[in-house]
Amino acid sequence: MKIEIKKDILASNASVAAQNRERLRRHSVCMVNMMASPGAGKTSAIVKAIEGVAGLRMAVIEGDIASEIDSVLIEAMGVTALQINTGGSCHLTATMITSALNYLDLGSLDLIIIENVGNLVCPAEFDLGETARVMIASVAEGHDKPYKYPLMFREVDAILVNKVDLLPLCDFDLAHFHQAVAGLNPAAAVLELSCRDGLGADRWCDWLRSATAQVAG
Amino acid sequence: MKIEIKKDILASNASVAAQNRERLRRHSVCMVNMMASPGAGKTSAIVKAIEGVAGLRMAVIEGDIASEIDSVLIEAMGVTALQINTGGSCHLTATMITSALNYLDLGSLDLIIIENVGNLVCPAEFDLGETARVMIASVAEGHDKPYKYPLMFREVDAILVNKVDLLPLCDFDLAHFHQAVAGLNPAAAVLELSCRDGLGADRWCDWLRSATAQVAG
Repeated sequence: MKIEIKKDILASNASVAAQNRERLRRHSVCMVNMMASPGAGKTSAIVKAIEGVAGLRMAVIEGDIASEIDSVLIEAMGVTALQINTGGSCHLTATMITSALNYLDLGSLDLIIIENVGNLVCPAEFDLGETARVMIASVAEGHDKPYKYPLMFREVDAILVNKVDLLPLCDFDLAHFHQAVAGLNPAAAVLELSCRDGLGADRWCDWLRSATAQVAG
Repeated sequence: MKIEIKKDILASNASVAAQNRERLRRHSVCMVNMMASPGAGKTSAIVKAIEGVAGLRMAVIEGDIASEIDSVLIEAMGVTALQINTGGSCHLTATMITSALNYLDLGSLDLIIIENVGNLVCPAEFDLGETARVMIASVAEGHDKPYKYPLMFREVDAILVNKVDLLPLCDFDLAHFHQAVAGLNPAAAVLELSCRDGLGADRWCDWLRSATAQVAG
């Protein structure tokens, strides 16, 4: 019974996601869905993207249970930011993204970055109609996360290993992490990053530029 | 409609939680529900508790989407550990805890520690029948988390601020964090901790001993 309810919700979500995807395709807009634990560095990685891909016309959709902290920060950088407060919901849904897209002039955009709710579980199950999925793993979280949250690691196109500046102080085995990720998702790009000191930001921006160029065709 | 389904699930969960709570009360067992983001240090804090409250008869219930990494670690320390793999579910439920309690000899225990699924959202909504709720906030996650996940911060009896050894390297404003927590939950105990170097572990163990003593009466 409970499983049936969940199946219905996911089927209905997938149908709305397909509509979002088709709408973006018509306007040649790339949409990247960024997922991570709370505090792994989603907002900081978006800030690095805004600083680094200045040539692209961007907008950001911010998903949070509560607060507008992140969208205020992004708007201050001169980029349109739409805040979705989910109330109690632990993930964004395709319908929430449809509502956000209604506020954007898609013809004048190249790239939309979605910051999903901080959570390594349910966001991986809900297709938003995105072009690509990116997750961030912070080295402060430990290298065992691929074993504990396998669906998230399987579902993404790129994994940003953030806060590598903390590596000397954390018991994070980078080789072990790479091995675990390769076992779950050998096709994923794995990019090391430190949003704090900027290390790896150039490769992250290159990845975004490449994803956007593929959509623009 | 969706809200009604959620209400039904929560009402049914609360009823099972009440049965768990009464069952523990009859045996004078304290049960602590530990919640946090992935990688904030739940398992490490449990390890510190096992090392520091040697006089108490303990068992651990480990909740994870997948893997048995944590329960294997706890068992190796000579403490009974029951692993619950939730499959896709992003939180433990009272019914899962009832099943785990069936495997334990409650008459021979003083303290059960539950490690919930790594998630700052849904675990806060699901009463498990616990005596007390503890959350861990890692300084690597940033000091703005109380604004973004207010329910979790409101619902707990104690907050462990873990990884304080990383403070010199993180943009974490401790005073700002304390102020935000005081606004949401002035009654919560806020304990600074570094599981890595042991700083604050004595106060964390004192807190657990005190919570257990209150149940033992």
